[in-house]
Amino acid sequence: MNSEQLSLYLVTDPVLCGSRGVEETCLLALKAGVGALQLRDKNASTRELIHMAVILQNLCRMHGALFIVNDRVDVAMAAGADGVHLGQDDMPVSLARKFLGADAVIGASARSPQEAILAYKEGADYIAANLIFPTDTKTDLGEPLGIGAITDLKKASPLPLVAIGGINPSNADIVRKAGADGIAVVSAIMAAEDVAEVVRALLKGPGKPCRT
Amino acid sequence: MNSEQLSLYLVTDPVLCGSRGVEETCLLALKAGVGALQLRDKNASTRELIHMAVILQNLCRMHGALFIVNDRVDVAMAAGADGVHLGQDDMPVSLARKFLGADAVIGASARSPQEAILAYKEGADYIAANLIFPTDTKTDLGEPLGIGAITDLKKASPLPLVAIGGINPSNADIVRKAGADGIAVVSAIMAAEDVAEVVRALLKGPGKPCRT
Repeated sequence: MNSEQLSLYLVTDPVLCGSRGVEETCLLALKAGVGALQLRDKNASTRELIHMAVILQNLCRMHGALFIVNDRVDVAMAAGADGVHLGQDDMPVSLARKFLGADAVIGASARSPQEAILAYKEGADYIAANLIFPTDTKTDLGEPLGIGAITDLKKASPLPLVAIGGINPSNADIVRKAGADGIAVVSAIMAAEDVAEVVRALLKGPGKPCRT
Repeated sequence: MNSEQLSLYLVTDPVLCGSRGVEETCLLALKAGVGALQLRDKNASTRELIHMAVILQNLCRMHGALFIVNDRVDVAMAAGADGVHLGQDDMPVSLARKFLGADAVIGASARSPQEAILAYKEGADYIAANLIFPTDTKTDLGEPLGIGAITDLKKASPLPLVAIGGINPSNADIVRKAGADGIAVVSAIMAAEDVAEVVRALLKGPGKPCRT
């Protein structure tokens, strides 16, 4: 992983992308410059997840992007994914590291400096500040942290920090200026009419795009 | 694994056991002679699953019983479980074997001789004939196979065969006489008022209990 890959990070959603589908939406996003992709689908079976993970890992490899599986260490292993993203309800980072090895990229969600420090100590490679602005996509994460949390979470560890939650082209600049190394989005890209246009808009500003 | 452990196989359900809870119900069942326990909970988070798996693995070890995790190879690895049970929508048996190693017990659901043969070739340790009689517990498995399927599935491979689906003390004998090496139950034990009594009733008959 290089932290420029985190500059724009897409989390998939099988519903928001509509009839265009996850694979096609991801392909458009990768072509336009998304540097990291996370497969997230809480309703798919394990076999469906493995199938989709193999497809997306191949797409990411072709585009020099990072491929991450949400929560499921077993799916990441089966698909040979670059890594996993772990929330506070998922496998602890230290156990995932044991199973996935030193080269795997492990991201951890954090909502407080204490959680960020723990993730760092347990061997995470990046932190996701979760969630910044209100959003309809994830309803189980409590109140939005607000922009101030980015600075606090960034200070807590030397890890690169990705901000997620309600980020779109109109507020991406503020998030980057607050210290985020990258921005992660779900609906802004998955539900976009013109995926490439939104990707380009999200990559503009003080953050460097991962590819030009 | 020894196939006598499969003689009576309990699959957990967090709702059916009511306020008694999964842990207490399993403890009563293990004390009464259940030889294998499968943790199944499609709604729990990964962290909750790992937590419960560690508890149940310890209980099983104390009682000489086999502990199996439904679907989730990652949870089985994290908890040091004896093995996993894999349905047709879960990870393929051959991949799970690669990750869990030669000593792990891997069970596979089969609804046809073809599926049983494939599971055997991929390295499964036992087959679950799924499902025999109508039941409310699992609604995604299609029509009941009926008692005749046990004989057909048993013939298809040399693996021990566990029958599941709508089995209770009133029909357990018929299932064993049809050739099942073991019977697996969810509601008959999880929802039982007197767990020990039901376990003893299910162990009577031509099948040998795993312990006396």
